[in-house]
Amino acid sequence: MRILGVDIGGTKTLVGVVDETGTVLAKERIETPGALGPGVNLPAILNACDSLGHTFDAVGIGCGGPLDRRTGTLLDVPNLPGWNGVCLTQVFEERFKVRAYLDNDATAAAMGEHIFGAGKGVDDMVFFTMSTGIGGGIIAGGKPYRGSADYAGEFGHHTIKTDGPECRCGSRGCLESLASGTAIARIAGERVRAGNASSLKNVTEITAEAVLHAALAGDELAREVWDEAMENMGIGVANVVSILNPSLVIIGGGVTRAGDALFEPVRAVVKKRVMKPIGELVKIVPAANGDLFGLYGAAAIALDEIRQYKEIPNVDFAGADLH
Amino acid sequence: MRILGVDIGGTKTLVGVVDETGTVLAKERIETPGALGPGVNLPAILNACDSLGHTFDAVGIGCGGPLDRRTGTLLDVPNLPGWNGVCLTQVFEERFKVRAYLDNDATAAAMGEHIFGAGKGVDDMVFFTMSTGIGGGIIAGGKPYRGSADYAGEFGHHTIKTDGPECRCGSRGCLESLASGTAIARIAGERVRAGNASSLKNVTEITAEAVLHAALAGDELAREVWDEAMENMGIGVANVVSILNPSLVIIGGGVTRAGDALFEPVRAVVKKRVMKPIGELVKIVPAANGDLFGLYGAAAIALDEIRQYKEIPNVDFAGADLH
Repeated sequence: MRILGVDIGGTKTLVGVVDETGTVLAKERIETPGALGPGVNLPAILNACDSLGHTFDAVGIGCGGPLDRRTGTLLDVPNLPGWNGVCLTQVFEERFKVRAYLDNDATAAAMGEHIFGAGKGVDDMVFFTMSTGIGGGIIAGGKPYRGSADYAGEFGHHTIKTDGPECRCGSRGCLESLASGTAIARIAGERVRAGNASSLKNVTEITAEAVLHAALAGDELAREVWDEAMENMGIGVANVVSILNPSLVIIGGGVTRAGDALFEPVRAVVKKRVMKPIGELVKIVPAANGDLFGLYGAAAIALDEIRQYKEIPNVDFAGADLH
Repeated sequence: MRILGVDIGGTKTLVGVVDETGTVLAKERIETPGALGPGVNLPAILNACDSLGHTFDAVGIGCGGPLDRRTGTLLDVPNLPGWNGVCLTQVFEERFKVRAYLDNDATAAAMGEHIFGAGKGVDDMVFFTMSTGIGGGIIAGGKPYRGSADYAGEFGHHTIKTDGPECRCGSRGCLESLASGTAIARIAGERVRAGNASSLKNVTEITAEAVLHAALAGDELAREVWDEAMENMGIGVANVVSILNPSLVIIGGGVTRAGDALFEPVRAVVKKRVMKPIGELVKIVPAANGDLFGLYGAAAIALDEIRQYKEIPNVDFAGADLH
């Protein structure tokens, strides 16, 4: 069984063919600037899939939401202007004559880690993405848990500080507003601009990476900002652990390149904040799928659906029926 | 099918016989003061079950944790000193010659609302208890979701205020420390003792109920304390909604006797804090099982297990095998 995985993003799209063992037979990352819209980007994505030069038995597509996975249609995705109403599964099914499945990228990434990555064989686990934003996915009893309307896993938009900063979602004190890559950069920038001494004054663009580097080099302001963000991330992880009692938390996304500087404080906070024995039973590890998490996730979603023989989108196409 | 439900508490125990339609055929509430221990309380509970005068096909037992539902054994339950290691399912199976099932009381209460109460037919829902503490139970896809080690649903012990008050669990800023009945009484008491003007100065014992009554009568301090607690409860509910995307939140427990004074602010906060459309899709309602939630919960747990024909405790007894 080979799956074409398609991870559509607002700036880049990753496509590749993955087999059931997790071997990537071919892959390509192409630029898909949001401003160009689906009229330009969608044909480019389809051509990239063609050019991989491999056959496949199904297509899995991961994308930021909101989307309707039952009909395979994108809704009003913030970073994909113009795609509202595009039935992606139909487009791929008509082009490649195999079944296609669409899911939220965070759920897909969680499933990718469960099938191919650090969560193999772990039935009750959660996945955090930690990059510009903070997202999440839940695996419950070995299956993606999507809640009542496929919106479960908004880990980044739960409140950890009632009177915290405003969040782009309209609430305040959300985990994302206090611990995402964007938040780390924003908080450091605010403190530098407020006149506090810091080597970050000389940095062209303050990013989370720059904050970490400055912190490791002994910059006090950067260290405080980093430590606070990790404390807050630890609290966010602790909250999800208290609510869901997973045996494993996997954290992926750009900020996790920080390695121990991230995982050590997060683990310490979880141990401190979560009731015994829940906090002691949970393992917190980096994602194994690395930069390919979107590709593995998209493939995992299709693989999971096929293995279950259910929730197949009811799309009519003149291709081989896998079932 | 008739179930004997047994809801064991640190001060009182409720036993009753419930049929599949939710009709309570008989019930009795007896005093079981924790200090007397299982040597006195357990025979009293068994006698109360006998005195109900009804036959039944299985026993469901709900109890505060920690407990091991697989073996049917209580562990070191804080308000049940001396019960550590008591295999309750074995005791009931030997006495009544039918299968017995033990579960956490919050999961049981959630399942009681799902099968008999306000959550009938709702597959993805959560249940909050709001009394001296705050507990929770999760129904995912029509089944109790217990996480990796049966500890899921610790809604009361997730942080909503990073620098909030110390909580009895060892963490700080937990929902329970800011919105439980105990917390409402404690916060009001602190402010009264700090010398602030309030009619609560004349109250013998400041309880959550006393705070609500004073608030409704126009007492400013009481009103502030109540409003803050409801804002915090709303944030706690919002967090669980963001993480799990249930279509229904049911809140039960003593504090919910406040009615609209509780549900209206909680609904408003959820609408304000949770991303659209998640926050708009969710309904927040009072528990329907009222003071019998423990009885219905215990019965529901047994009914659910029997209906699934699985996870039967492997206890040897000379009774009829239901399977």
